[in-house]
Parts: sequence; structure tokens; C-alpha cells
Amino acid sequence: MSELEFKGYALTDPAAWNEFSLVSYPPKTFLADDVELAITHCGICGSDVHTLTQGWGGLSHLPLVVGHEIIGIVKRVGANVSEFKPGDRVGVGAQIASCMECKRCKSGNENYCMKMIDTYNDVYPDGVITQGGYSTAIRAHQQFVFHIPEAIASKDAATMLCAGLTVFSPLLRNDAGPGKKVGVIGIGGLGHYAVLFAKALGAEVYAFTHSPSKLDDAKKMGADHVISTHDDDFYKAYDGELDILISTIDVFRPDRPLKVYLSMLGVHGKFINVGLPDHNNPLPPMHAFDLQPNGAFIGGSHIGSKTECLEMLRVAAERGVKPWIEELPMSQAKVAIEAVRSGKVRYRYVLTQDIAPVQ
Amino acid sequence: MSELEFKGYALTDPAAWNEFSLVSYPPKTFLADDVELAITHCGICGSDVHTLTQGWGGLSHLPLVVGHEIIGIVKRVGANVSEFKPGDRVGVGAQIASCMECKRCKSGNENYCMKMIDTYNDVYPDGVITQGGYSTAIRAHQQFVFHIPEAIASKDAATMLCAGLTVFSPLLRNDAGPGKKVGVIGIGGLGHYAVLFAKALGAEVYAFTHSPSKLDDAKKMGADHVISTHDDDFYKAYDGELDILISTIDVFRPDRPLKVYLSMLGVHGKFINVGLPDHNNPLPPMHAFDLQPNGAFIGGSHIGSKTECLEMLRVAAERGVKPWIEELPMSQAKVAIEAVRSGKVRYRYVLTQDIAPVQ
Repeated sequence: MSELEFKGYALTDPAAWNEFSLVSYPPKTFLADDVELAITHCGICGSDVHTLTQGWGGLSHLPLVVGHEIIGIVKRVGANVSEFKPGDRVGVGAQIASCMECKRCKSGNENYCMKMIDTYNDVYPDGVITQGGYSTAIRAHQQFVFHIPEAIASKDAATMLCAGLTVFSPLLRNDAGPGKKVGVIGIGGLGHYAVLFAKALGAEVYAFTHSPSKLDDAKKMGADHVISTHDDDFYKAYDGELDILISTIDVFRPDRPLKVYLSMLGVHGKFINVGLPDHNNPLPPMHAFDLQPNGAFIGGSHIGSKTECLEMLRVAAERGVKPWIEELPMSQAKVAIEAVRSGKVRYRYVLTQDIAPVQ
Repeated sequence: MSELEFKGYALTDPAAWNEFSLVSYPPKTFLADDVELAITHCGICGSDVHTLTQGWGGLSHLPLVVGHEIIGIVKRVGANVSEFKPGDRVGVGAQIASCMECKRCKSGNENYCMKMIDTYNDVYPDGVITQGGYSTAIRAHQQFVFHIPEAIASKDAATMLCAGLTVFSPLLRNDAGPGKKVGVIGIGGLGHYAVLFAKALGAEVYAFTHSPSKLDDAKKMGADHVISTHDDDFYKAYDGELDILISTIDVFRPDRPLKVYLSMLGVHGKFINVGLPDHNNPLPPMHAFDLQPNGAFIGGSHIGSKTECLEMLRVAAERGVKPWIEELPMSQAKVAIEAVRSGKVRYRYVLTQDIAPVQ
């Protein structure tokens, strides 16, 4: 693979969010902590849609290759890297670097580093724009590269690296496990993982969905209780019952204020919001009173740390966690991304390499 | 004291929130778990203003006696009561009963019981309206009665029972102590206690106030850092620094969105809102993005448990925590309550008994 040329399916015209062109671009400077991988698979995340449609704000650069649920084969490692060697099957998620020096980086919270670099649509210190995984190859700091256990197929591991980790981290940090009741609001890419992992961790799982067609699916994913949110009173039977609520909702219905969800939490229960809507779409209004009856917490979360990612992969391998995915060749990214935007995806797409087959 | 007649300074005309009339009313039925006290002192809480002005919604009954920071002398105890005896100096706060049977009551969270009864403007199971402490006497379930340590004067203990406990409980539950950095937003009745108790618990204290005149006061209360929030950039020097923020703000400035405060928190730091504005005054709008950079939590809190109240009194006695108060005879409740509403209070009023001097 040439030092000078990676190739990817890129957005080139911001007015045509779902049109991809195959482009070449120079990779970032290869440093001593870097791992370079030849990409075999890349999942499609809601973040890709928000970025392509510029829902989160402007693009830092064009052309832009999105994709941050990446599996590949190590091709080259820097002088400081002993954890990986060429030929290893590894993954890269939504973060590609951090400062590695701050308090957060040094305490297992590198996913909250204030100098973090996103896998795409961000800027490396050398000025190069970060480009994602709908492409032939990527370079990442070794801290953000993860060995994939043999028991997990690449197509299944890919979407764990953002969607899976984004829900696994808050589940772990908020003690989801035996004896705990975990609610999951919204059964999409993230929500289906929240059901799968909450169950794998031993919690009792309550799946809330507005799609009648997903009730059966959630049951098959392992939810102990499946609840349609169509009924205006859906929450009343669960008053004060849950320990954790993972909310994957992007856009809240106006007639579903946050207090409806908060009321289902026990004392100091946690409502963890992992949905990230467009910038013009705030959370529903809330009154101080809504937090008082149970001392509930509303929290956010940002992907997960390396330690948590490896723990997630271990749990997935050991308990046979298998995401519900569809595969498509990378050149059909348009089909997949449109299905994600329209909500037709069940429950995640994985693109397979078709630009330069990995040797 | 007659079984049939307690007396108090009551609101009788909802159109005149600050006019009190001395009225007589029947006490609740005396039960086996009840303690009756002759009131000597009662603090004035912001809740009294919200209730009198009907800012939190309608009144359940008139005439209504407010006040829930009560100190008195035990006059009578029920058959089940062994913790107290006539002559004891005790306190009663903002809650007067709970079911004592639910999971919350049985796990030290009786302050979150779904069947809790507020000290005033609520209804006892026998149908009697609860009446507060601007009065001669009150009856409370023994769980909601607290021995006052000898080292604390009654005038100082009174306002601890709502204002003090409301901030002490979240400080304790969120591990305020040595090595922790605690911010306090708003230095009023609650905020001044948050500074006093965070300091007494050993935390490093950051006091944020919009009143230049309070900067010096906060320093005298023990704050290690005092910060004026007038400067638009006040928060920038504290990016990611704090572990806990206790917010006592009732009404947020429109140009101070929650993310300004949240940005000062470290990873999974807690913003605990203890202000309870009028019902038509929601929290400032918030976007999911605001919670993501540090995985911050926004939480609520409701007074505190008996265990926490006794711990607060122990800490106050041991470390000499002394609130900043002004005393007035109970008949001057009007003067005090107007000063509370206009924000002139420094920092809490305590009414002393002048209806029927306690023997």
C-alpha cells in the first residue's frame, strides 16, 4: 500500500449528502505510536448521516470519507508499538487519538480527552484532515486500536466499535448487571446493542419502542419486557422501577417530556442519553421538579475507553453476543446510508471492502 | 396544650401572600408513632414564599400555616416512641411522614417515598391539612423528628433542617470530602449552607455568585475560591475542574445556558440542582451535546434522610458550623418573608415563638 495514497468513498458535494465518489488522499504522517490497517469492513453509524447532511454543523473539509466502525488487518506498526504486528485482525472506532498526557487520558478516560481526535472530519496535528473507514486503509494511535477476539467474525465486530461501545461504556460505568433493571429507549442500532449487552451483563432488560414491528425483535434480542411507547400511559406501570435508562432517542416526541422517562427510575436512577440529534434539536424542556421525586440523574456519555472496548469484546466473545446486521459491498454505501436515514435499517449495515481487496 | 387547638400565623387570603393572621386549627390525630412538640423557632425557607405566592401551583387549603425548619420541645410521645421523651429539644424539617413500608423507606431513602407527606400544604391520611411551623406546635412521625446536639443553639439548628439538609444530602451522597472540588452556584440560604458544609466535609470550595456584595461573605463562610458570574467568561478558567456543582439557582439568566456550568465539571461530574423555581420556570434548554464532552450528570435531590440529618447535625456540632441568620419574633413573619422574596436576606431568617411562650 503506497505511503501516498489511500482511497475511499467520499462526499464531494455538500448539496448531495448521499452521493459518494471514489477519491484518493494522502494519509497522515506515520508516527511511532501509529498502527496502519488495511480495512476489510466498516459499519454505518448514525453519526455518518449527521455528518454527511451537516446536521451537526459544517464540514471541516471536502472531500470527506466517513465511517468509524472499522475492522482491518495490520499492515505496519510504529517503533513504539509492541501490542500489534502485521497480520493481526484489529478494529478502530470513532476516536483515533488523544493527548495521552492529561488527567483524563491517564485515568482510563481517554474517550473524554479534551484534545481527542475524531476518526473523521477532524484535523490531525500535522494539518491532515481525518478520513474514515469507507476506504482502503487508516492510521490510528495504538491506544485506539483493538484486537478482535477470534470468536467474533469481522462483520459482527465492526459495529461494536462505535454503536456497541457507546452503550456498553455507560452500562458498565453505571453497574448494569445481575439484580439491576435496565431500560432501553429506542431500538435502533444503538438500542439493539443496549439490549444485547445489558442482557449479556446479566441485567433484567426493558425495551421501549414506538415501532410495533420491533417489539418481537427486541424480545428475540433478549429483552425481558417489551413495551410499546404508543400508549400515552406506557410509563405508568414502571413507576420508580428501573435503575438505568439508556436513551438512544434522536428526536423526542413533543408529547413525551423527559419527566415521563425519568419517572420510571428508582432513587438516583440514571437516564443516560446517547442519542446525538442535529444541533438545532435540543432535549425536551425540563423543570427542576422533574428531577426531584427520585433524585434522578440525566447523563451523557462519549463512546468508551480502550479498557471498556476490550471488556466489551471479551463479553461479546464469551457470551456469543451477535448484532443484527446486513452486509453490503462498500460501493453500495449510498443504499445503506439512505436506509439508515429513513430508519429502515434492521439494525446496522456493514460495508465490506471492494476497492482494493486486502491481501 | 389543648388537643383541640394549635395556633399559627396563617395565610388566609391567597391574593395577599404576605399577610398573616393568627388562627387556631385542630391538630392531626395523635398516633402511636407521633411526637408532639411545642415550637420555639422556625426558619423561613424559599419554599414558604413559593407556596404563599402559589408559584408552585394551587394551595390545598386555607388558612395555611407555612414553615418547615422547626425547633421545639417534646411535649408528648406516642406508644411506639422510645427515641424521644417530653422535654427533649428536637427538630422537624420539610417532611413529616412517609409510608415506612416501601423499598425507599426501608433503604434509608424515606425522603423519596412516593407517599411522603410534606410538613405543610399537604394532607394527612385522616384528612387534616398539614400546617407548618409559624405556629405553637406540631405533630410528626418519629422518623421525621431529630435530636438537636447540645452544641448547636436552637436558632442555628432551625434552618439546618431544610436549607442545610437539602445541600448536605447531595454533598454526602456524591462524596464531597477531602480531595474533592465542590462548586456552589448562588450564595443564598441554601448556597451559604453548601459552602459551610462542603468546607466542613473537607472539600475545596468554589463559590459562584452574581452579587458582588456576597463575594466577601462567601470567603468568610470558608470558600477557597470566590467567583463573580458577571463576567461572561467566568467559567472558562475552571474547564473540567470540579467534581460536584450544587446549583441553588432559582431563575437562570437566559445568557447562562446549562452547558456553561456543565463545562466546569470533570468526567462524570455531577450538577445537582436544588433550586425549585415556580412551575412556569423550566430549566434552561439543553442539547444532548452539552452532556457529552465530560459525560456530566444533571441531578435533582429532595431534602435528606433521617440518617443524613443526624450526620449533618453531628458534623455541624463537631466542626462548629454556624449559619448566618437573623432572628425576628414570629409575629414579624411578614418582614422576614418579604426580605426573602426580594433577595435581601443575609442569609436566613429564624422566627422565634411569640404566640404562646413554651414552658
